[in-house]
Amino acid sequence: MTEQESAEPAADAPDAGARRGLSRRGLLGLAVGGGAAALAVGAGAGYAVAASPRGPDDEAPYEFFGAHQAGIITPVQEHLHFASFDMMPRTDRADLVELLQDWSYAASRITQGLDVSATGAVGGSPESPPDDTGEAQGLPANGLTVTIGFGPTLFEKDGEDRYGIQDQRPAALERLPAFLGDDLAPESSDGDLCIQVCADDPQVAVHAVRNLSRIAFGRARLRWSQLGYGKTSRTTSDQQTPRNLFGFKDGTANILADDTAALDKSVWVAASDEPAWLAGGSYLVARKIAMIIETWDRVRLSEQERTFGRDKGEGAPLSGGTEFTEPKLSGLDARSHVRLAHPDSNGGTRILRRGFNYVGGNNELGRLDAGLFFLSYQRDPAQFITLQRSLSTDLMNEYVRHVGSGLWAIPPGAAAGSYVGAPLFA
Amino acid sequence: MTEQESAEPAADAPDAGARRGLSRRGLLGLAVGGGAAALAVGAGAGYAVAASPRGPDDEAPYEFFGAHQAGIITPVQEHLHFASFDMMPRTDRADLVELLQDWSYAASRITQGLDVSATGAVGGSPESPPDDTGEAQGLPANGLTVTIGFGPTLFEKDGEDRYGIQDQRPAALERLPAFLGDDLAPESSDGDLCIQVCADDPQVAVHAVRNLSRIAFGRARLRWSQLGYGKTSRTTSDQQTPRNLFGFKDGTANILADDTAALDKSVWVAASDEPAWLAGGSYLVARKIAMIIETWDRVRLSEQERTFGRDKGEGAPLSGGTEFTEPKLSGLDARSHVRLAHPDSNGGTRILRRGFNYVGGNNELGRLDAGLFFLSYQRDPAQFITLQRSLSTDLMNEYVRHVGSGLWAIPPGAAAGSYVGAPLFA
Repeated sequence: MTEQESAEPAADAPDAGARRGLSRRGLLGLAVGGGAAALAVGAGAGYAVAASPRGPDDEAPYEFFGAHQAGIITPVQEHLHFASFDMMPRTDRADLVELLQDWSYAASRITQGLDVSATGAVGGSPESPPDDTGEAQGLPANGLTVTIGFGPTLFEKDGEDRYGIQDQRPAALERLPAFLGDDLAPESSDGDLCIQVCADDPQVAVHAVRNLSRIAFGRARLRWSQLGYGKTSRTTSDQQTPRNLFGFKDGTANILADDTAALDKSVWVAASDEPAWLAGGSYLVARKIAMIIETWDRVRLSEQERTFGRDKGEGAPLSGGTEFTEPKLSGLDARSHVRLAHPDSNGGTRILRRGFNYVGGNNELGRLDAGLFFLSYQRDPAQFITLQRSLSTDLMNEYVRHVGSGLWAIPPGAAAGSYVGAPLFA
Repeated sequence: MTEQESAEPAADAPDAGARRGLSRRGLLGLAVGGGAAALAVGAGAGYAVAASPRGPDDEAPYEFFGAHQAGIITPVQEHLHFASFDMMPRTDRADLVELLQDWSYAASRITQGLDVSATGAVGGSPESPPDDTGEAQGLPANGLTVTIGFGPTLFEKDGEDRYGIQDQRPAALERLPAFLGDDLAPESSDGDLCIQVCADDPQVAVHAVRNLSRIAFGRARLRWSQLGYGKTSRTTSDQQTPRNLFGFKDGTANILADDTAALDKSVWVAASDEPAWLAGGSYLVARKIAMIIETWDRVRLSEQERTFGRDKGEGAPLSGGTEFTEPKLSGLDARSHVRLAHPDSNGGTRILRRGFNYVGGNNELGRLDAGLFFLSYQRDPAQFITLQRSLSTDLMNEYVRHVGSGLWAIPPGAAAGSYVGAPLFA
């Protein structure tokens, strides 16, 4: 069902990272206004992951604990709610560890279709705010995954080592270089931490971000967030390739979940890579790519197809064949997207794409605020940088603008009952 | 399957409003940049609704033509893309009629899972932009409905009768009065025309708004648009009541699609009502209601439940019973939402609610930009006004802000091959 080692959360796991519930701080975050009563509510909350499921499910939920975090090679879900967080001023290492423990505890529950804590949306005392905000009550897990990442600024910000982890910073974890055509807005870029939430129901995805934001109270604050839909990337061989908002199939040549060799080569950080705490993890690049929809829509079909290097109907390379025929690069325009992005044009470089379409309404000129929220996982950020530099002459650049960007190290999955990032703080 | 009379679009319907394809203007709108070639593409386009279906579907699509427009009592779909339009300066009555014909033609196709015109997303000449933007290729209709409405300003704007229809304006069709707590933004309020698009796949909904906006080129411009999800209203008796973003079940007491007597009394404009062209239609109220999520989440459970007048888990009235037990109003707080909104507190007034949750990301303080995009259909706008005035003392007002508003007359459904609003221009 999922890429992770099956691992039941152990109620009495003895390791240092194990948690039996939300921290006092996490509960305090939930309970501002509730005061002491709320703490009393939390006191009895055990790590009862099997209790009070939200409802029936068509499919078994994805495990939160495992060798790798879920949400990377998990079959891509219908909806995304991506959230970037900054740590609050005057927080210390203990605050950060506690936050990661609380997030992991809550994520291990909600991914199983449970409320964020054992007292739930209506439990505890009527004189306290409920631990869980409640809008996902009655809904199954809907394939929910929660994937947590660490940004460059978590390790060092303005020269400061806020959390005593500067020496553990991966050398490759630094702000992405500027690319031609970047038009990045700080309000949709970067962040100390990120959480990628995917689910087949948008309410379940929003519920996750909302509750994890709430639990972070006093420790981290939502910096920016992005909703998306439509799984524009095919990540398993039985999935139909979805279409992006240019109307073309996207992600045809993606790395697939069952291609272990490619995953080991291009997605997972190896034990032999540095630093050791990141082994089994990955790097996540996010790019908010606005599409100039109205301009694109006025381009003649032949030019649209030349730009992509594929035909629009079938998705076949213009060099011939069907969708899954390997393109003959010499048969494509030298500036076509497929040719420039192809591994053969980039020394074999591949990445795992996991993007989503987004539509935010329209701007004051009546133009759709829409595009691709590009997400990719790779063993080394250099893979993305290589490809993005290759795309600097892409014909498609006339129709897109990169308005947001971020890079995060994605720790390996947490051991049962432990928390994401535990090896970094060991 | 749907509320409408089953009516096959007739390829050779003889009535004045019948269309065999997009207008020259509609094609021109699609083809700016393509010039004369695009017109040539369109010339052969017949009204071939049965041709080139996009893909297989689980369920039969909803008819566009019928006695009533679809999307009102149609079982509420998973996703909404609502769009408000303003007519362009210097457009005349013929432009408006042509636009409505083009929209109806395109809507009658896309609701059946077809492209917006017979030449489609890859047909016609490679030297022209495709008629259809293509991102819904391969997707079934997904329950798509397109519902078209006329705002007060279509009939009269700044004292001007732009389209020769001022004398046909329904007396009740005027901007809604100001309500206590209104904080309306012009950029999410009002509009000459509206299109409510609902579908079970967001890509299909977005495709509809995008293509209808594109077809409107030179005649009408997108003024504002709003995406939503999560069908917060129950409109058929076999639907589970969904939850709003306050975590409560919403729409328990809604008018249901099979309650013909209630629909005739409270939703459909009767033949005896004025004006005659609106008979079989309705009035649509839209309210963008921002929720102060973080404040609400800190309110104790007992107060949340007092505010709604229902318990949070089951959704039962606090006066006792289960979700569908009729509330005993005297057993609820006088300022509770259920009591104030109840027909018995408002002289029997009822409306058909069809709202959706929305989440647009977060603001610069890290607070979620989220709430309810409230939509209601009623026979007379006075019904909504009565209820909204009653809610002026609602305890819930502390946690919501009305930031957008609009009112539109919803014409009856179009006869097969005709267009929405034809009786107004007859």
